[in-house]
Amino acid sequence: MTFKYNNVYINEVSTITGPKEGEGPLSKFFDKSYSEYYMGSDTWEQAEIKMNTENIDLLLNKSNKSKKDVDIFISGDLLNQIVASSYAASTLNIPYMGIYSACATSTEGIIIASNMIEGGLINNSVVNVSSHNNASEKQFRYPVEYGGPKPVTQTFTVTGSASALISNKKSNIKVESATLGKCIDSGVKNVFDMGSVMAIAAADTIDKHLKDTKREIGYYDLILTGDLGMYGKNLLKDVLKDEYGYDTRNVDDSACMIYDINKQSVYAGGSGPACIALVTYSYILNLMRQGKLNRVLMVATGALMNPTMVNQKLSIPSIAHAVSLEVIS
Amino acid sequence: MTFKYNNVYINEVSTITGPKEGEGPLSKFFDKSYSEYYMGSDTWEQAEIKMNTENIDLLLNKSNKSKKDVDIFISGDLLNQIVASSYAASTLNIPYMGIYSACATSTEGIIIASNMIEGGLINNSVVNVSSHNNASEKQFRYPVEYGGPKPVTQTFTVTGSASALISNKKSNIKVESATLGKCIDSGVKNVFDMGSVMAIAAADTIDKHLKDTKREIGYYDLILTGDLGMYGKNLLKDVLKDEYGYDTRNVDDSACMIYDINKQSVYAGGSGPACIALVTYSYILNLMRQGKLNRVLMVATGALMNPTMVNQKLSIPSIAHAVSLEVIS
Repeated sequence: MTFKYNNVYINEVSTITGPKEGEGPLSKFFDKSYSEYYMGSDTWEQAEIKMNTENIDLLLNKSNKSKKDVDIFISGDLLNQIVASSYAASTLNIPYMGIYSACATSTEGIIIASNMIEGGLINNSVVNVSSHNNASEKQFRYPVEYGGPKPVTQTFTVTGSASALISNKKSNIKVESATLGKCIDSGVKNVFDMGSVMAIAAADTIDKHLKDTKREIGYYDLILTGDLGMYGKNLLKDVLKDEYGYDTRNVDDSACMIYDINKQSVYAGGSGPACIALVTYSYILNLMRQGKLNRVLMVATGALMNPTMVNQKLSIPSIAHAVSLEVIS
Repeated sequence: MTFKYNNVYINEVSTITGPKEGEGPLSKFFDKSYSEYYMGSDTWEQAEIKMNTENIDLLLNKSNKSKKDVDIFISGDLLNQIVASSYAASTLNIPYMGIYSACATSTEGIIIASNMIEGGLINNSVVNVSSHNNASEKQFRYPVEYGGPKPVTQTFTVTGSASALISNKKSNIKVESATLGKCIDSGVKNVFDMGSVMAIAAADTIDKHLKDTKREIGYYDLILTGDLGMYGKNLLKDVLKDEYGYDTRNVDDSACMIYDINKQSVYAGGSGPACIALVTYSYILNLMRQGKLNRVLMVATGALMNPTMVNQKLSIPSIAHAVSLEVIS
């Protein structure tokens, strides 16, 4: 399902990260980075909630808006019952929609907001995502204190909160169109190789978007996937080339940009819903504002993994949603 | 945030339940009820997935539609990472939005779909919710085999899947307006009294809806909350009367209707996202089609509870979203 927008813009963004992102190559583009994982809170979960509440305050300050100016708060994260979003929402006093699409949550949120803005139902929305490495590891795998070794195809969940104010008020970054993806069961059961799980969904959504918009792949200066990691990115490029016949020179992956994979002990790269949102809202928007990129397809990718279903030997479904961002004058 | 719709209708609904709902007072209104909790699947989680896939097939059959006719599938449930929805979505080949608002998920889904239909972005959507008693108990509390006693304020999670086809094609049931609620921290930490947690959010959303639409409470033939249970329903009525000054004679609660509370060992009544959706899509729509109810405000209520946060001694946030349904000729 592809949507075309004439009246939707990103007005402002804000980003807060954890320590490893703050030591990474994109460090200077983030609004704030904490030097340790508790961030002054008692628990990792509460640290993630704190990042969200702080980050939304920051976004509203940067936008010269107050909470009552915001029509809808849309948010999701990786914690069970998306509590990093809901507990943040309980401090905001803004009508709230909770969403879950694993690491594809950021673009699901942008699509919901953009559809309501384009349709004239709302004027604006704050769309937020977060993830926290230690809280995620504890919930999905083992507490990090366990210190278990991991295979090279594993990714490192990004710690951070990324927010965007999206509205019908013109800015230089337009949300030009979007494609809502389908949930795909690729048959993969390897919980340590989410990149391969998601690559199939990413290829499907990219192809659907290009066909629906009747565009060549070269229309975009950059097609940026969410968190495939080194191995998933290579698989995506192979699939796009061999199965769909695309030239993939403009395809890159946020997971391979947010960290220095060779130096930072992050296995195959970053992951988590915050990964592509942090990279896009900081580094990529900066390149767009400098005129170095004009058209970017943001393709957040989610592995809808649940440890109970993995233990029941079910394969892991995946999904990808694409949002086209364009610089306008 | 209140939305007014001129062009949104419920075209068809379908309902599948577990055994206790099939033995309850609304039994004859459901499309199908299983006589035991596994439903031919190996696990309770897979039984919930099966209910969803079967129920969506049933909905499409009743509607004379095929999967490719559906623009968007919107779904949520109580399982971690909403897997009952996502694994069902992976069999559908329909663009998918995962949502989470605990037991307020049904009306969040209707609002997202209605906004996109009213705005002209899509023509139709299948909106689905589910819950499964044994899968929920295992995840949020203890496996049912444990047989632990429960306090009287506890509710019994409904087993069922409830789907609606919503579109811009006129039918006799109009989605007339809706109010998206705010997430409210009521300060309650008692995980065995979710009804009291949610009553505050329900009162806030009902009041907001009536003020935004400039309606008296008597405008509605029925204001139906989601799953407050006996104690929560009484608290809601007290709050609406004492704090807001409303006459509450038309306020009732789905949790008190889906079971015979005196005979069925369900403590304070039903709960779960399927509770209000099953009651509305079966019994209430039947009364509306018979002309016995003309205007119904469906107020799904969610306690955004997470065992990890409860163990960390945080209070439980809650939310309620309201949808106004009207019979039209």
